[in-house]
Formats: sequence, structure tokens, C-alpha cells
Amino acid sequence: MKVNGVEYRTVWAEKSGRLVKLIDQNALPHEFKVVEARDCAETALAIKQMTVRGAPAIGAAAAFGLAQAFAQAPSEKLWEVASAWRKAIEATRPTAVDLFHATRRVWNATEASGAPAETAVREAQALADESIQACKKIGEQGQSLLGDGSRVLTHCNAGWLACVDWGTALSPVYAAHRAGNKVFAYCTETRPRGQGARLTAWELANEGVEHVIIADSAAAFLMAQGKIGLVIVGADRIAANGDTANKIGTYSLAIAAEKHGVPFYVAAPTSTIDLSKASGAQIPIEYRSEEEVHVVRGTDETGRIASIRWSSPLSHAENPAFDVTPAGLVTAFITEAGVVEPSKLTEAVERRA
Amino acid sequence: MKVNGVEYRTVWAEKSGRLVKLIDQNALPHEFKVVEARDCAETALAIKQMTVRGAPAIGAAAAFGLAQAFAQAPSEKLWEVASAWRKAIEATRPTAVDLFHATRRVWNATEASGAPAETAVREAQALADESIQACKKIGEQGQSLLGDGSRVLTHCNAGWLACVDWGTALSPVYAAHRAGNKVFAYCTETRPRGQGARLTAWELANEGVEHVIIADSAAAFLMAQGKIGLVIVGADRIAANGDTANKIGTYSLAIAAEKHGVPFYVAAPTSTIDLSKASGAQIPIEYRSEEEVHVVRGTDETGRIASIRWSSPLSHAENPAFDVTPAGLVTAFITEAGVVEPSKLTEAVERRA
Repeated sequence: MKVNGVEYRTVWAEKSGRLVKLIDQNALPHEFKVVEARDCAETALAIKQMTVRGAPAIGAAAAFGLAQAFAQAPSEKLWEVASAWRKAIEATRPTAVDLFHATRRVWNATEASGAPAETAVREAQALADESIQACKKIGEQGQSLLGDGSRVLTHCNAGWLACVDWGTALSPVYAAHRAGNKVFAYCTETRPRGQGARLTAWELANEGVEHVIIADSAAAFLMAQGKIGLVIVGADRIAANGDTANKIGTYSLAIAAEKHGVPFYVAAPTSTIDLSKASGAQIPIEYRSEEEVHVVRGTDETGRIASIRWSSPLSHAENPAFDVTPAGLVTAFITEAGVVEPSKLTEAVERRA
Repeated sequence: MKVNGVEYRTVWAEKSGRLVKLIDQNALPHEFKVVEARDCAETALAIKQMTVRGAPAIGAAAAFGLAQAFAQAPSEKLWEVASAWRKAIEATRPTAVDLFHATRRVWNATEASGAPAETAVREAQALADESIQACKKIGEQGQSLLGDGSRVLTHCNAGWLACVDWGTALSPVYAAHRAGNKVFAYCTETRPRGQGARLTAWELANEGVEHVIIADSAAAFLMAQGKIGLVIVGADRIAANGDTANKIGTYSLAIAAEKHGVPFYVAAPTSTIDLSKASGAQIPIEYRSEEEVHVVRGTDETGRIASIRWSSPLSHAENPAFDVTPAGLVTAFITEAGVVEPSKLTEAVERRA
């Protein structure tokens, strides 16, 4: 998507595969800057520190990172070094399945190749390109859910910043908006990191979609007032039965949507579906540092990026970063292969394979 | 309750009634300071700017403020001035019924009195003292719900800082804790103003109750994990049918509690019950400034109180400050008159009268 008139992806690699570039999502929305990861260690750190975040974007960054390892490793130690970096990359974030898909795909491609480094770089690029296509198709598949005058609620950031481009939950919003439908979006702040208040709001404003930020806890009240027509969220990992791991608070929204008869959609590429997990109970949930709850980043009166501690200094916090929404609360999954009911999910993945 | 070993109330008046003192709750938890309101205008402003907040504390502050108007008005214009200030005080915050109870009670007492100023001051003091007694009794009534090993979730701040002393939702927690029961409390941050992260956490730490701060949106996930034994919240106004207006997010918690079979209690003095409102639909909901969502206050690295804008600078926010939880989601009301089911609420109030 465009930023100040220039077309960007969230993460990309130079042709040699040795240099990876990423939009710094910790600096947004206050500052737009691109950071360079000069080796696999810097790319892994960028994933861990959430310079890049969002399951599909993490997947692409992981692929580019592993390709970087292949491209930079001394040939006599190629497999040893690449294998170590694969493990390091896979240890950065535990919840999003895209990361593991990505490293496996790049790795598997190299194994059968006479030129592993070139293959890894090419495979990472193909993964990123296919990810963009899948997101674009998610928009086309979901667009009809957002007629003129729609009022959609979304959580966290499942927009183009979470992907390589287009987004998952926001892709249908962008498709409907570009098709001329008036769409109003409520974006939840998404405590503690504020991906809704910081990133989704920034994306929607950039794209000209009318929207408003709300406290996470206000969503149920707005549903009771009849202000929300549908909910669309993204997913970090979807189990075979449709149970969906996504940003903390997703489950709470799904319960409220069920209570008010508001359709609840999960938008994700089929690559997010992990058939190796029978149900959500098997998906590991990442707990992040309590500092994320205590310390809030933003800009001070002078516009400088600053951090403050807002919570009581004597207390601790507990910070589960994701939760699991049972499939029974999901109306349908918006995938690149179509809008699919939870019971048809396995079928849709197998059709893809 | 004690702060650094000294016994405090949240709001009190000097004997003449001309000077009102309040704990500055906008400075907490980072700084503990007492501010002086030298006339009724300053007291009204303290209510409006939330130097004092929480329905019972607002009630006491309003009573002291109106008594201040009586004590300071020139005798030839006593009724005119007092009447104008009554209206001004009642315009500060629309949701909490205690405010209107308090001004009516002080006003009514003066009307039959030959010495209106003295009567107003005495009546305000009586109201504050009775408010403390009611809160203490709420603790005694609710204590048995918190056996040894209890895990309670509370929202916003319905502790002693929200009252004149003791608290409503936290009063049973303090009673159980002082009786030697081990109680673990989850306090929701309570976006946007952070009364949970700032005030409830500060109170619990001061009192030595084990606790942890969580994002508002994490509550449902913790319930799904079986970590929450019961929920206790306060109330700003309770309609005759038991519908309860309280801090935004309360409704969301009530829905989640219902879904998980977690008992959901509303702790409030019977003065919070407004029989003039048949249901929650008739309770006005205060919308507050969007700045509360955009701007977060805390302390910077040097410990100085500072504000930052954390949300995207191009976007607006919608900030409903309260929501209404239907009586059907409330297990029982913990009042000074006993633990009362929603259907018995009117009876309990009439018994009091």
C-alpha cells in the first residue's frame, strides 16, 4: 500500500538476499522509517522485538531471514550455520504458525537444490509474493460482506502492516472501500501494545476509511447499542477444528458478538491453518513481558517518542499476548480460497494442498 | 484506610464547612497529595476533573460542596446562591446517582432549618459518616464470598478511593484479607483512565493483598482457564430492576462471566439504587473527551508526571465512560443490608426507607 504516495511492503529483501529491509512498526504511527537488517541475527531480533509483527509479515521476515543465513554462511559450514539460524528464528515468537511454515518451506527447498543459497533467496521471495496474492484474494472473497453503509469492528492490527501487503481482516475493508462502498470501522485500541490505536487507525486514515478508536472494553456496549454490523479479526494460528489463536481480547469480542447475534469472521490465508493441531488447546500461548502493560509509548508534548509508566509502581502485571476463540463462535473464515464455515475448514486446506 | 501509616478519608471538610480537602486521585499512584477546595466552585471543579471520583466519594464531595455554598453565601442571597451551586454541582457528572442523592439530602435538610448553613454542614458530615458505615457493612456482608484461596476479579476502582473509606467492591476483599483469608485479586487496567492499573493496584499493594494487573481484554481468557472464582464490581447507578450502570467494560466482563459460569457480584450501598429508573435504558451514559483515549498519563524516566499521545495522530476516538449490565447477568448485589438477588432489590431498598 502507499505511504505518502510511495508503494511499500512491510518487509522485503535486496536481490542478493543479504540485506533485509523492514518498516519499523515500533516507531509507527509517530514516525515512518525503514530499518535495515544486515544479517540473520538482526532479522531475528526484528521479529523478536516486533519491528515486524503480524503472522503473515512474521512469516515473510522469517523466510527472508533464513535466506539471509544461507546467503551469508561460509559454504563449508552452510548447513550447520543455516540450521542453527533456523532454530534461532523459530524461537523468536511461539504463537504464529506462519513463521514455522516459512522456515520449513525455505529449508525444504534448499535440501533438494544444488545452489542452496540462491534457492533460499528465491523461495523466500516467492513466499512473500504468494502471501501478497493470498491477502489480495482474501479482500476479494470478503468484500461482499461489506455493503454500502457497513459498520465493522476489528481488533489489533490485521491490516497490511501485519502482512507483506493488503492485510487479512482489513483486506475486505480496503476492497469494499475501493469499490466505492462506504464502510465505517471501529478499531479497538488493543492493549497493551496498542496495535489498533497505533497501526490500524494509521492504516485506515492513510487509506481514507472512516473510523474511530475505542477502548477494548467498549466493544460489547457498542454491540448492545446496535452499532456494530460485523466483526472481522485476523488469526495467528487456526487449529484443524477452527479454534483460533489471535491477539488477546479476540475471545472476549467473540463472546460479545455471539451474545448480540453479530457475525464474527476470522480472515486469514489458509497457510495460517495448522492441521497438526487438532484443537486450540494444543496451540502454545505466548506470555510477554509485564513491562508491556506498565509502560506506554507515544509522543511527548514536543513530538519526541517517549515512554511513561502509567500503572501503580508497586504492582505486577500478567500479560498473555494471545487467546483462543473456539470455532463455535466463528461465523466463517475469510480465506483466499473462499468464505468457509468452521466445519469445512479441513476440506478447504486439503483442496489447497 | 492508612496511607504511610496515617488514617485518611478520600474527602473531608474542616469543621466550619468552608474548606474541603481531597486526596488528588489524578496524581495517584505516582504522587500522594491532598488538595484544598476553598469554595464550592473549586469543589465542583474537583468533581468534574476527577480529582475525586467513584460514585460514593462523588456523593460526599457534592454534599460537602453544597454545604460550602451554604456556609459561604451572603445571608441575603443564601437561597439564590445555594440553588445555583446545587445546579452547578449536579451538572458535573451525569451518571452516578449518589451525587443527586447527596445534593437533595443536604438541600432538604436546610429547607426545614432555622440555621441552614450549620444544618448543611452537619448533614454533609452525617452523609459522609453514614457512607463509611455502609461501605464497612458491605465488606462484612460480602466477606463470606471470599474464602481462603479465593481468586477475585475486579474492574475499575471501587475501593476506598472511590468511596469515603473502605470501598464497595474491595470492601469484602479487605474484610476477608483482614480476617486472615488468602485472597488473590486480578485488577483490570480499566482503559482509558486506568483506575484499575493506577488506583486499585495501589490500594491493594498498600493493604498487602496479593494481586496482578491485567489488560481489560484478558479477563475472558483467564476465565476460560479457570483462574477467576468470582467477579466483584462497583456501580454508579442501579435501576429498580437491577440493571447496573458502571465503568465501561463492566458489561463485557458480565457477559464473559455468564459464559463461564463465574458468579458476578455488584457491590454498592443501597443509596446507589435509583428506584425512579425502571430499567438501565433510562440511565444517562456519560461520554467523555476523546483525549482520555489518546493521551496517557504516567511518570517519565525521571519520575516526573508526564503525558504522552499513544494513538495515531490522524484518528479520532469514541469514549463512552459507562455501560449498562442487565440485571440478568448479576448473580447478586452486595449491599450494606445484605447480599440481595436482583429480583429482591426493590424490597431491600424499601426496607431501608
